This record gives sequence, C-alpha cells and structure tokens, in this order.
Amino acid sequence: MAMVFARSAGDVRLWVRDPEHARAIAESRCNRRHLPEIRVPESIRVVGDAEEALQDAELILAAVPSVYLRDCLSRVAPAVAADTPVLSVVKGIEFGSFARPSQIIVEALGPRPVAILSGPSHAEELARGLPASVVVAGSSQPLCEAVQRAFSHESFRIYTNSDALGVELAGALKNILGIAAGVCDGLGFGDNAKAAMLTRGLAEIARLAVHLGARQGTFYGLAGVGDLITTCYSPFGRNRSVGERIGRGETLAAILEGMENVAEGVPTIRSVHALAARAGVDMPITGELHAVLFEGKNARAAVVDLMVRMPKDEWES
Amino acid sequence: MAMVFARSAGDVRLWVRDPEHARAIAESRCNRRHLPEIRVPESIRVVGDAEEALQDAELILAAVPSVYLRDCLSRVAPAVAADTPVLSVVKGIEFGSFARPSQIIVEALGPRPVAILSGPSHAEELARGLPASVVVAGSSQPLCEAVQRAFSHESFRIYTNSDALGVELAGALKNILGIAAGVCDGLGFGDNAKAAMLTRGLAEIARLAVHLGARQGTFYGLAGVGDLITTCYSPFGRNRSVGERIGRGETLAAILEGMENVAEGVPTIRSVHALAARAGVDMPITGELHAVLFEGKNARAAVVDLMVRMPKDEWES
Repeated sequence: MAMVFARSAGDVRLWVRDPEHARAIAESRCNRRHLPEIRVPESIRVVGDAEEALQDAELILAAVPSVYLRDCLSRVAPAVAADTPVLSVVKGIEFGSFARPSQIIVEALGPRPVAILSGPSHAEELARGLPASVVVAGSSQPLCEAVQRAFSHESFRIYTNSDALGVELAGALKNILGIAAGVCDGLGFGDNAKAAMLTRGLAEIARLAVHLGARQGTFYGLAGVGDLITTCYSPFGRNRSVGERIGRGETLAAILEGMENVAEGVPTIRSVHALAARAGVDMPITGELHAVLFEGKNARAAVVDLMVRMPKDEWES
Repeated sequence: MAMVFARSAGDVRLWVRDPEHARAIAESRCNRRHLPEIRVPESIRVVGDAEEALQDAELILAAVPSVYLRDCLSRVAPAVAADTPVLSVVKGIEFGSFARPSQIIVEALGPRPVAILSGPSHAEELARGLPASVVVAGSSQPLCEAVQRAFSHESFRIYTNSDALGVELAGALKNILGIAAGVCDGLGFGDNAKAAMLTRGLAEIARLAVHLGARQGTFYGLAGVGDLITTCYSPFGRNRSVGERIGRGETLAAILEGMENVAEGVPTIRSVHALAARAGVDMPITGELHAVLFEGKNARAAVVDLMVRMPKDEWES
C-alpha cells in the first residue's frame, strides 16, 4: 500500500515495527520477508520508530493483522494527533468484543474520521503496479472523497461506497471462504464443487452481515464477490493456501508454526462462529470450518456433511 | 450428462449426430473428440440414428450448441412424441429472434414441458464423477421435481429454482464474461483486475436480465455467480481460453478455425450486444467485447477504455 500511495502522494513513511527489519528494508530497498521480488522506491521513507512515522501525518494507513491491531495502536496512541484521520485495510473481527477494525481504531486512538479501503487487491500485484479497483467507505464522506482524490491512479481505481459496515464486514468474512476454497482444493474436489461452495458461502456471509445492518448489494460488489474471487483463486492467497493444507490433512498447529504471514481467516472463523451463534444466524460453512480447525473434525467429513445438509430448493434456508 | 444420468437412470441413450463417430464411441467406449480420458460405461447405448434414440423416450436431454439447436430439433421433430418433456442444458440466445433455448425447443418440437439445468458443471469433471451442485428450473414444477428425484446423486446435487427465465439467461450471459476473463488473462493484467472486471460484469448481465423480467437473486446463486466463477477460472473453460488467445493478440477467425468445440460466448456476445441495444440497457463490457471480436478493436485498448469509463461511485450506473 505504501508503494501505491507513493505513486500519487508526496511524503510516504512506512513504519516497520521491528527496527532491524526497518533498517534492512531502508538499506536494501527490499522487503525480503513479504515481497522479496519488489523494489521499494527511494520516495518511501522506511522507519523503525513509530513517532517518526506518525509525526505531522495527514493520514494514517492502518495495515496491521487484526489480532495485533488494538495492542499496536494503543502503544503508538501518544504519538497520534487528536484529529488525524485513519484509513484502514485491516480485515478481521475481534474475538470476544466482536469489534470491527474501524471500531478498534477509534477505541484505541480516540474519536476521528476513519475510512475503510477494500476490494480485490492482493499486495503482490499492487506492488508490481498491476491494475486494481477497490472501494472506499466510512462515516466521513469528505474523508472518503479525499482518499479517492489523493490516491486514484490509472492503475489503482477507487470507488466510493456508502455502506461502510458492509464493506468492512465483507472484507473480514470473505477470508473464511478463502479457507473453505482451499479445503476444496486440498481435497481435490474440482472446480464445480468449489464454485458451489463459494456460492453458498457468499449467501451465508451476506446473511450474517445483513442481519447486522449491512446492505446485501455490497456483497455483490468489489468488496464482496470481487474480493472473494481473488481470495479464493489467486495463487497469492494466504487463506486459500492454509485451507489447501488443511484439506490435504495437515493440522492447523503445524501450518501456523511455519507461517511468516498471518492468515486472517483463522481468527475470523473463531470470532464469526461465536458471533453467528449470538446473533442466531445459520452459518453452516463457518460452523464446519470451526469444527475442522478447532475441534479436530476430519475435513472430508465436514465437506460431505455440508453437501448433505443443503436444502432442496436453492433459496430455502 | 449421459454419464451423470446413467448413474441413476436405467435406460440412457446417447445420440451422436455423426454415425461414424457414434460407432467409434460405441465400440471403443471412448469419446476421443471431446472427453478422451473418460470411459463411457456399457450402460449407455450410443446410437447414430435419432429415431432409435428418441423412440419411447421418457425425457429428452437437449445438449446441442445453441446455434445448431433449432435446425437440429426441426430435423428430428417427426421422431419426437407429442408429450415428451425436454431438459435443456443449452446455453445461448438466438441472433435475430433473441429466443432462449427453451423457446426454440417448444417452437421446433411443439408445446411441451421444458426444464433447464444450469450451474457450475464442467463436463470433464462431471464425467469423472467429481461432485457438482446445479439448479433445475422451468414452467412445469412437476417436471423440475421429477428431474430432481430421478437424477440427484451423492455427487450430483440438484436444487429447484423458480426463476426459469433468470436461470436460462444467466447460463447464456455468463459465457460473455468467460471471454472477458480470458482477455484479462491473455493481457497479463493479474487477478485483481480480473476480479474487478467480473464483478462489474456480473452486475451488467444481471441488469439486462432483470430488465427482461428475471430475478436479481438468481445471478447470485449457482446458475449465476457459481457458474460464472467456474467459467472464468477453470482450465477447462472454452470461453475463457478463446478470450485468453484474443488477449494475446490472435484474431477470432484464426481461433475458431482450429476449434473442435464451440465457445458459446462468441455468438452470445453478438446476440446480446443487439439485444441490449434494443432493450436500451447499458452493457459496456459486452460492447467492448463486441468491438474486439467483430469490429477489429485492440483488446488492450478495450480493457483500458472500460476502466476509464467506470463511474466514481460503485453503484452509479
């Protein structure tokens, strides 16, 4: 995202939490851990110190794994000015509180305009400058329009969407289906079964979101089906690849141990499984994934159970 | 489809128009032209004579490329009993008349119950017995339920859907986007751009269908987004692979010359481009594909033009 912003904005600072890693990127102009084939341009100032990164910032981009977001922001809060707006690309739902990233941001930093950027936008392709289309949403329309003006680019198109709740929920929930897609891949069930699973899954996550107040249409736009497709079919998808390994019989513990990057779908399944129970919304795919990831259920048995419990009419619930 | 039906039904006859080809399949138990790696079970009677295939049939499955459907059915009409129901897996819209396959069937064979089977179901995977979920729809609910009862199988799940118009239109229209997806692939634009294109495309084909009386929801179910995903991502997709070659700079004439199987998207783009103009529905992706396929426009210029004309708000039309 820093590279996308550097194409249009003047002064982009990239805060890297580990000072060693920050120095390595600043010197080599390469993030070997996450984007080894990409050159980080000189125009991006890479810093290991949060205060230096945040000082006089006009806009803060939050790009932290959701499970670390609250803790991370609470630590840097003293360096954040009272009115600096935040743009979030964080995808998740906090376990226990069920808070969305935009809510965590306000709770940790204090009330301020927050916007959400979401849509089909794998980091690897963005960094290579390949074209992408995303949406920006949030309670502050002026912030959304400012983000659209400031960072739109021939190869990075930003559309506004007035359903901030739906955009943020879609971004989190689609990662559940990324894992489901990977499980189908790992079991070798083929493209027909995978597409059927994702179709049922899209209806399932939209059902929860609409129950919570989101708009159905958002799930059929860039932040919904668009992002879902990329998550479930791109070779870069971390959630999909975790699911694939699960489908092949590996345990979650073994997979997570070797992972450099967080697969957001894993904590999201845990949060959403609890949230759906509390909301009284039926989410069979999420439920089966929870059983496979956290209760030791066999992946093949879970997928077979899902197929058997499907109703006779497509729209019967 | 004959192999899917043979799993549940007793007497399945497969009519192959070319008697030489029929004999070769009957003897070798292999359709070398279309499914070279699949063994055709003995329980399927392969015949080169339409009368023999149709005699005393309880149900006729129509699986003919849409551009040949009317001619093919008109020729065999004398051998078809007055009340035999037809199940159609034909995907297309006739140029000029704008008739859907179910309408062509009734016009060519006389009034009778017609049902439509659609959804993510690539033939290669079906023949291998991999799981698939599809929908059946049609004006005769008893026929739909009979199809569901007769051919449902552990690995072939059939759901009813009451929007026959939407199911049939979705099946035809999604092939347009299969070609669009292939063009993105051929141009090397990446997964982010491809997903954005398909999201806009799904909205575009649903807009036409709703204008014609279909239900929006059908486009977000198995016959819509489900089939769309498979069409656009499966390596077996003929429409996708035609689009990919277009994206790489080949001409349509050169591609069609070497093709054994028809890519339904090509005639569908021609029909739907005319239909959209008549209906006054804006279909920018279909329009650009028509310009590339039939008016000599450069594929890269078409995709760039599409990105530029996209509106600022996601749901602005």
